[in-house]
Amino acid sequence: MQLPDPAWCITQNSWEPAHQRHSETIFTIGNGYLSTRGVFEEGYPRESRATFLHGVFDDVPIVFTELANIPDWLELTILLDGEHYCLNMGEVLFFERSLDLRNGLLTRRVRWRSPQGNITLLEFERFASLADSHSTLLRVKITPENYSGTVEIHAGINGEADNEGYKHWEWLGQAAHNGSLWLHTRTRASQIELAAAARLSLKSQSDIQMESWNVHNHPTLVRRTALRAGESIEIEKVVVYYTSRDTSHPLDAARQHLAELPNPAWDSLWRPHQENWEKEWQTCDVEIEGDPEAQIAVRFSLFQLLIAAPRQDEHVSIGAKTLSGYGYRGHVFWDTEIFMLPFFTYTQPAIARNLLSYRYHNLDGARRKARANGFEGAQYPWESAATGDEVTPTWVPHFADRTKMVRIWTGDIEIHISAMICYALCQYWKATGDDHFILHRGAEIFFEVARFWASRAEWNKEHSRYEFHDVIGPDEYHDHVDNNAFTNAFARWTLQNAIRLYSWLTRNHPDIAATYCEKLHLMPAELQQWQDVAEKIYFPYDPQTGLIEQFDGYFQRRDVDLQALEPRSESIQSIFGIEGANLTQVLKQPDVLMLAYLLPELLDERSLQANYDYYTPRTDHTYGSSLGPSIQAIMACRLGKQEDAYEHFMRAARADLRDVRGNAGDGIHGASAGGVWQAVVFGFGGLHMDQHGWHIVPRLPSHWKRLKFHFTWRGHPYLIDLPNHGPFSSEAQDDSRVSL
Amino acid sequence: MQLPDPAWCITQNSWEPAHQRHSETIFTIGNGYLSTRGVFEEGYPRESRATFLHGVFDDVPIVFTELANIPDWLELTILLDGEHYCLNMGEVLFFERSLDLRNGLLTRRVRWRSPQGNITLLEFERFASLADSHSTLLRVKITPENYSGTVEIHAGINGEADNEGYKHWEWLGQAAHNGSLWLHTRTRASQIELAAAARLSLKSQSDIQMESWNVHNHPTLVRRTALRAGESIEIEKVVVYYTSRDTSHPLDAARQHLAELPNPAWDSLWRPHQENWEKEWQTCDVEIEGDPEAQIAVRFSLFQLLIAAPRQDEHVSIGAKTLSGYGYRGHVFWDTEIFMLPFFTYTQPAIARNLLSYRYHNLDGARRKARANGFEGAQYPWESAATGDEVTPTWVPHFADRTKMVRIWTGDIEIHISAMICYALCQYWKATGDDHFILHRGAEIFFEVARFWASRAEWNKEHSRYEFHDVIGPDEYHDHVDNNAFTNAFARWTLQNAIRLYSWLTRNHPDIAATYCEKLHLMPAELQQWQDVAEKIYFPYDPQTGLIEQFDGYFQRRDVDLQALEPRSESIQSIFGIEGANLTQVLKQPDVLMLAYLLPELLDERSLQANYDYYTPRTDHTYGSSLGPSIQAIMACRLGKQEDAYEHFMRAARADLRDVRGNAGDGIHGASAGGVWQAVVFGFGGLHMDQHGWHIVPRLPSHWKRLKFHFTWRGHPYLIDLPNHGPFSSEAQDDSRVSL
Repeated sequence: MQLPDPAWCITQNSWEPAHQRHSETIFTIGNGYLSTRGVFEEGYPRESRATFLHGVFDDVPIVFTELANIPDWLELTILLDGEHYCLNMGEVLFFERSLDLRNGLLTRRVRWRSPQGNITLLEFERFASLADSHSTLLRVKITPENYSGTVEIHAGINGEADNEGYKHWEWLGQAAHNGSLWLHTRTRASQIELAAAARLSLKSQSDIQMESWNVHNHPTLVRRTALRAGESIEIEKVVVYYTSRDTSHPLDAARQHLAELPNPAWDSLWRPHQENWEKEWQTCDVEIEGDPEAQIAVRFSLFQLLIAAPRQDEHVSIGAKTLSGYGYRGHVFWDTEIFMLPFFTYTQPAIARNLLSYRYHNLDGARRKARANGFEGAQYPWESAATGDEVTPTWVPHFADRTKMVRIWTGDIEIHISAMICYALCQYWKATGDDHFILHRGAEIFFEVARFWASRAEWNKEHSRYEFHDVIGPDEYHDHVDNNAFTNAFARWTLQNAIRLYSWLTRNHPDIAATYCEKLHLMPAELQQWQDVAEKIYFPYDPQTGLIEQFDGYFQRRDVDLQALEPRSESIQSIFGIEGANLTQVLKQPDVLMLAYLLPELLDERSLQANYDYYTPRTDHTYGSSLGPSIQAIMACRLGKQEDAYEHFMRAARADLRDVRGNAGDGIHGASAGGVWQAVVFGFGGLHMDQHGWHIVPRLPSHWKRLKFHFTWRGHPYLIDLPNHGPFSSEAQDDSRVSL
Repeated sequence: MQLPDPAWCITQNSWEPAHQRHSETIFTIGNGYLSTRGVFEEGYPRESRATFLHGVFDDVPIVFTELANIPDWLELTILLDGEHYCLNMGEVLFFERSLDLRNGLLTRRVRWRSPQGNITLLEFERFASLADSHSTLLRVKITPENYSGTVEIHAGINGEADNEGYKHWEWLGQAAHNGSLWLHTRTRASQIELAAAARLSLKSQSDIQMESWNVHNHPTLVRRTALRAGESIEIEKVVVYYTSRDTSHPLDAARQHLAELPNPAWDSLWRPHQENWEKEWQTCDVEIEGDPEAQIAVRFSLFQLLIAAPRQDEHVSIGAKTLSGYGYRGHVFWDTEIFMLPFFTYTQPAIARNLLSYRYHNLDGARRKARANGFEGAQYPWESAATGDEVTPTWVPHFADRTKMVRIWTGDIEIHISAMICYALCQYWKATGDDHFILHRGAEIFFEVARFWASRAEWNKEHSRYEFHDVIGPDEYHDHVDNNAFTNAFARWTLQNAIRLYSWLTRNHPDIAATYCEKLHLMPAELQQWQDVAEKIYFPYDPQTGLIEQFDGYFQRRDVDLQALEPRSESIQSIFGIEGANLTQVLKQPDVLMLAYLLPELLDERSLQANYDYYTPRTDHTYGSSLGPSIQAIMACRLGKQEDAYEHFMRAARADLRDVRGNAGDGIHGASAGGVWQAVVFGFGGLHMDQHGWHIVPRLPSHWKRLKFHFTWRGHPYLIDLPNHGPFSSEAQDDSRVSL
């Protein structure tokens, strides 16, 4: 028995029911097609059991639609000499659970004394195949230590899966006989069919008694065998999934796929799975010497992004909580394009392309939203699901008083999301040189979003300028504000770049430019209008101080000494209330600094410093937005404050592993995971791009001995190896660059 | 085979999936402990399966709490020579379903041709025992007609029961072996335990193969046997329920109870069940000669009230939709006290006492509501569940636009409910002479409600009078009104009667009066204040015209010619919108006439006629409130307009049987059922009470040949037999009164 490698394995050495939901999130595994939370095969009271499969959304009250928890593949009831094995009974003598990030293998070893005193060793393993994404496998080895008796296994697929009490599935059909079973079911409203086919195999030295329990909506395979003390049996359960999103006959596909798998299937499925994982890590691994916590946290973050990333499906994207929990119901935010996508753009551009294609396929939803709000073009939804229509809840029950409802405004007025999609498109284009994608998909998004901004701009006669009123910027502590600098800057940026894109098109691809002109009724006069709006958009920059005012009147809001409120264990919004926080200058996340991060050409060094110094002490870094710390870390790096940067970075790195915000049980903070990668590569690693290509200005924390990372630029993979020779100058990079 | 008696049986001769939910409601059976909707044992797609057990509420979003659908006793999967029997497959050659209202036996005969062409006769029967309320039984006789083959039966208890997709149950334990099984489960939030113990028995001429499928949360008993064409088998499934509301060890109780039942149990349980039903009908049957539709509709209404009436439980009451559907989530409204309760008060006072005790036990909830709103005493909730706290939803999603929420005000300002409970107490007291109940329970309610009214009254300086502002009266088309005549009159009535009750107490039971004075801190000064408020409550009566203005400014609202809108198929509120209807004079139900009905001494004949003539054409009789038609019928009777009365009466009588409002699928209109009884007895039968006792002034519809009904007065049962000799005068009653 090998000890788990602490640089690659997340390991838990005791079972703590108090942290059940947190550990279920941490031990999530997946393969980009589906993910399964780290619940026990045998179940546990109050578990938050869930398997989510990309794109399987169904209607639900309040949040409109959610990823439906599918009938899961883990279920395994184990009876040991007649006693029901479950960790809430008897005594746990030994417990070790380990997730190997190299290959997504989750193992659990349990020595359990039953209420009657029988001691059994149970060794579980599971993986969702990365090479054959429809296949999931688990196996368990059972060894009675101090008794002989019957072992009985029930392995079913339960069609009664629910989302925290809400059921999405209606039965279509099932069977269970001999070694296998299948279940065919369908979401109630969205009518997505799901078929699961399962097989159970058992190796034992004694006779095996087999039964098939074809209970309605819960077909189950049963095995019984005798075991003597010290002997072991091994059980394998393999489950194959297909949905009507994959094929028009998901049941046939699942049954046939299962029939084609060898029996047992583990060994033959394991090898290609592991090889695929090796290839994944070759493109994106990050090595940090001298900081084991940072090392494992970064790999954990990348693992989370990798298991949530759609590899064969360009109609889905990664939700704010990946596929790892019920938080935000699987909805997709700007978290994907701005926080998670750069990792894929720079290490796995094919996945980035899928994620951007999701926005292309949902362009009609964004058009509907713009039209419904009285605007032109495409206004992307703040929260997005299957169709691109807005699915942000408009009213939610107040957390403290169930008779009151709270109005959620982000779906109405947090409008920068549309620009962020264009920004991500540009970033992808620059990094990959994928003209084809821009020509056939990206340009249409760009033009339609530019249209939206032009129609949303409001002319201020008095000042002869365009303004954007009644918006929410990235800092959501302040809503219904006018002229949010971030929003205005990105409205301008989108319009300018849409015009540039159009010029490029007409120059280099006149036929395609003509197609767009016809399809979108794009006329020169409209381009002229974009130009006019872009030139006259108000941007609240004070050349005297170098400060950008986050929005009109921000500097007049009440200034709060955040230090004086320490130590605290809740957000400023919880302390002051929604309306109270709105009246202060406290930020949920660094809004202006985020702008400076994304558009570095906007501010000179002096101005950047001024804004950093002003906004940093006014930001709720600990309990504000989980999107903030990684960006704050990068900006600190840019200003040479590595130690500050490291503090912010570790706040992001610990978001889930240490559950610093107390809500990791709802699922992985996907934006934080993506931000961690950006903080390492763009912050400490100092990678940046300009018109000449890429550059490195490393700013390693002093205790890091070495940083190595990969990226891909214009189709070429690079490995950057940065030994820490002490404080870097921008010239000190030469010995550290290795091109592959 | 006997034909169902059309005077006692509801019969359906074909299976119409389009009316599935309606027929599920109509064929609900129950025993006052639980009720089960008329779904098929074998299931059917999109069914609205439900068994509700009194008092088993659990938390849910929006409506706060709801009766949890319990794991049901009906489930029976039938495989005929390997083919799954279900009416959505194959062909239904014959279908007859019949509910015998005499004894609550539901039977169904189906001749079914399977997809493979096998024809089988299946004869189902079920009942929920009225003599042994924990026991439910079903049996089915299966006869293959044109084939021989294996019959396989799966009979389970499925712990995954849900309320239209929302799950309330968490598993505690289970077993299945040999002939029986049990399941132990618990509601998630309210933590009410439920245990179900079930047994399956089968009579066959061939060998029977038995299995027990102990699938998690769905234990199932399985039987297989061979059948030759023309041979029959009979299967019986008996399920016993206990909850932690009944006993501290519901599982032990259920298992023991089941063990004590003979096997098979049908015959020995059927006899006492049927005898109990006979006794029930002896106290309350209504016979109508010359009008078969009215006859069956009245019995159907009484049956619905009887199966929902708690016989052993004084901590529950009957919800607006009885126990027959998901509508209003099991919540209790004034429908119970004013519409349903009179039937029990006058035929089964012990049940009436239970229902009134429910309000006594929930007095603290009403006190909390008063306190939360800044008032004194007890303010009963508009919608009530387990605790007496207000459970009216405050915000519900708009039916047409899911992003909008509609504020429901009834829980805040429809305040007459508290007076209605006092009114029902008085009615019960008068009819039964049950001083003990008033002394020990009723008086406390009365005093606390009087207190509420005194603290809610607002002094109008200008007019030197007390007023009630910002209320909703029974007519809910008009909200936020001032001085609703109904509310003001009942505020005064409650205060006056509280004072009378107090005088009676001090005179006849000074010790008990003293106890209340101490317990409730009741001082003479407060009584004086009640007197003062009662005397000065404004009542909007115009002695010139005899008209009562429904609320301040009602006569100034827009008058609408309802005739001009005919024919219509939706309510006036749907046509004009919530705010639009509020601006008109159109009523959802007759508000002032309802007042005149409940307090007949308030208006003389001239004034009654004036108000009837004014308000009747302004009432939305067809699609307004289902509470209206029966009251309108009674008032028409009082004014000698029997033919008008009959039209309104039949509108109430058809509410569920003919689904005239299109929403019977949500459950029985309990108030309408109770109103039907009142319309027959107090309207056509002309029974009324005054200080001298009871009197009869019959007003039979001309085509009725005879009306017979029962009632109980001061402990004595009476049977009234009214042959129709043509128009009655009030003197014509002598030959028709029969005292038992």
